[in-house]
Amino acid sequence: MERHDSCSEWPVERQHEDCLSESTQERCPVNFPVAVVLPAAGSGERTGLSTPKQFCRILGRPLISYTIHAFERVCWIDNIVVVVAKESHDMMADILHKYNHTKVKIVEGGPTRHRSIFNGLLAFSEPGVGPKLQKPKVVIIHDAVRPFLEEDFLLKITLAAKEQGASGAVRPLVSTVVAATTGGCLDYSLERAKYRASETPQAFIYDIIYQAYQQCSEAEFQFGTECLDLALQHCGTRAQLIEGPPTLWKVTHKQDLASAEAVIKESLSQSACIISGECTETQNLSIWMKNCLTAAGMRVDAIPNTERSMTLSASRNVIKLSVNSSDFVEIREMMKRCEESKDFLLYPVIILWVFLNVSDQVSLRQENDEASTIMNLAEEAKKINIFLYCVQLRYSKVSTEWERTVNRLCQLTMALIRDRNAAFTGQMLQA
Amino acid sequence: MERHDSCSEWPVERQHEDCLSESTQERCPVNFPVAVVLPAAGSGERTGLSTPKQFCRILGRPLISYTIHAFERVCWIDNIVVVVAKESHDMMADILHKYNHTKVKIVEGGPTRHRSIFNGLLAFSEPGVGPKLQKPKVVIIHDAVRPFLEEDFLLKITLAAKEQGASGAVRPLVSTVVAATTGGCLDYSLERAKYRASETPQAFIYDIIYQAYQQCSEAEFQFGTECLDLALQHCGTRAQLIEGPPTLWKVTHKQDLASAEAVIKESLSQSACIISGECTETQNLSIWMKNCLTAAGMRVDAIPNTERSMTLSASRNVIKLSVNSSDFVEIREMMKRCEESKDFLLYPVIILWVFLNVSDQVSLRQENDEASTIMNLAEEAKKINIFLYCVQLRYSKVSTEWERTVNRLCQLTMALIRDRNAAFTGQMLQA
Repeated sequence: MERHDSCSEWPVERQHEDCLSESTQERCPVNFPVAVVLPAAGSGERTGLSTPKQFCRILGRPLISYTIHAFERVCWIDNIVVVVAKESHDMMADILHKYNHTKVKIVEGGPTRHRSIFNGLLAFSEPGVGPKLQKPKVVIIHDAVRPFLEEDFLLKITLAAKEQGASGAVRPLVSTVVAATTGGCLDYSLERAKYRASETPQAFIYDIIYQAYQQCSEAEFQFGTECLDLALQHCGTRAQLIEGPPTLWKVTHKQDLASAEAVIKESLSQSACIISGECTETQNLSIWMKNCLTAAGMRVDAIPNTERSMTLSASRNVIKLSVNSSDFVEIREMMKRCEESKDFLLYPVIILWVFLNVSDQVSLRQENDEASTIMNLAEEAKKINIFLYCVQLRYSKVSTEWERTVNRLCQLTMALIRDRNAAFTGQMLQA
Repeated sequence: MERHDSCSEWPVERQHEDCLSESTQERCPVNFPVAVVLPAAGSGERTGLSTPKQFCRILGRPLISYTIHAFERVCWIDNIVVVVAKESHDMMADILHKYNHTKVKIVEGGPTRHRSIFNGLLAFSEPGVGPKLQKPKVVIIHDAVRPFLEEDFLLKITLAAKEQGASGAVRPLVSTVVAATTGGCLDYSLERAKYRASETPQAFIYDIIYQAYQQCSEAEFQFGTECLDLALQHCGTRAQLIEGPPTLWKVTHKQDLASAEAVIKESLSQSACIISGECTETQNLSIWMKNCLTAAGMRVDAIPNTERSMTLSASRNVIKLSVNSSDFVEIREMMKRCEESKDFLLYPVIILWVFLNVSDQVSLRQENDEASTIMNLAEEAKKINIFLYCVQLRYSKVSTEWERTVNRLCQLTMALIRDRNAAFTGQMLQA
């Protein structure tokens, strides 16, 4: 990977693969070192849950891991400093290990948000435990509880900070802001159009925000909430405000966790891959399904067999069609290949196994045995973050009946994919 | 029902039953007429959906119907005026009819929020189409897209408005509010603790807010967003600001619909009623289940048989235990009684039918017939908003195996109740 290297601090080699610059076949748009500070020492009392919200699980994975991953996949981001409360250190270390977050260093938080951020910044300047991190040109400050970040927005924020010294995401106000009298009555209300909600990510030239924090008063450390304001007050740097997408919203209350889960589930439900097998019946069924799922807005690939080179976890939703007999070997092979992909733990992969019965020649005993084999296989699969579901359907020569059955199959398929509910794995559903 | 009647405009008879004042065995806390104006003429462009968000469906029912119901169940609220865009009139009328909203009148909206609210207020003062509504002492103004309202908070707002002329819900700011320069840079930021987000409900002495709107300038009608401000500017009335619960939040973006659904689903998953039958096996199973579900935080009643007087829809989740044979008559009877309850369409009721197999003497043919009968019954049930699911389990004399089976049954039960997914009705799951 070539890059325009104007900065002597810049590491020459980068290993990360899914970089915007590469996917668009352009040179890397950032030619200076960039790091991230992620304050995550809050207790999350507003969620009303005992676990701080950054550690609440969505599809089995802690929220903070989603946020970390959003930065880690960006090739021009070098280091991520996560600032956590002392009592969360071990939990955080476990999360980094389990989800293979290799760019992250943990730093201990302070009693307030500003103290925690400053601690994070110090990791680049002062020797702590372990090796000192390389000082970045630009540092991004973000909330651990805003997991949805696109690389192009991070790029905007980063380049604006490089140019202007500071930058921050803003959003239109959802509610009018009012000031109260001491008696709790309306004093005045602000004209909504003139103001913005300040969100994160924010970015700063490292030396500016570091200097701002060094000059911070005790009162600012204790009661302040706005990093952009520190840069303005102490360094005279006026941050560029950049309108961010609605997905930047902050997981604040308990119901926001459900929103976050819905956003993630929706993004995992965009596409599916149907493996039709070689026989005519399943290939026909595959065409029906493809049409039906495509009409419902999914992108669907249909292929006769899995190829060795294919990354199953790329589509996240694999639909395997079988006639009568069930081929456990192939499912086991799929599971193995999902597990081999480096990010199999990040999001659950769905394998939906569809049995097309074209004859009645199946005895009850055989069915029961099969049901319990499938249940056990699904238990195994769940351990490696694969959700295995089964649907069976009976072929009918009556075309209206067959159409109804296939439609029901597609309804079930979409519900299973969108729902991604671990409780229903191993079940044999009827279409 | 007795009440202290100090207001001559006050209707003497009230029919509504689930009033706070009655449930707490006190006199009705409000002795003056109260009405509601619900502006719902917005296009909801921020959701990114083609349907305005107030008409988006949650568990099959439009969001606005939840908001209406939250007011309609309060006995001291007399009328609700819903203000909708002209093109939504017929859809709104259908919603009122389908969900039996009897206290509601539809009024046509204007081009801005303030115009729409004023139109709503005029319904109490000016003759329009149909009979003029009784003028209230206090009028509550609320957003159609904030469906979660408790009666006690409405009471606070209403009484404060009666005393002070105006009142409104506020919430702490989630983000710092900033002002931008004309160049899009940070001008200054507000001290977060001094300001509040103004939410709804808001309440006003009718004559005050009516007068305020009559004096409104064209610019205010066009760009204003804050009713409390109108009362202050035109009538000198300083609204009492009252801190509201986090559930007041506004469905603004697409992901908020998922939050709202999660909140509703959670409130429907608090309790269950197990109908154990008379035989020892199912009664034992009922005890196991009750313990397991109670440990997971549910309130569980276990009774041997349904009583004629029992309102099945009250618990929203009915678990019926059967041994071997399936008693369709009893399920049909349950369905009939759910349908008879006046509010069966408001929330889907779950009937979970658990089959305990204590013998292997079931032939495949019989199972297939049964499966299709259940599937058809579930289709019928869905039409009257009942979700029928089935789980079968096999009794085991090996205690560890039996324990595992019962645990799996409880996991499935909770997942089905919490998920309330229409796609899985009629399925026969295995525990």
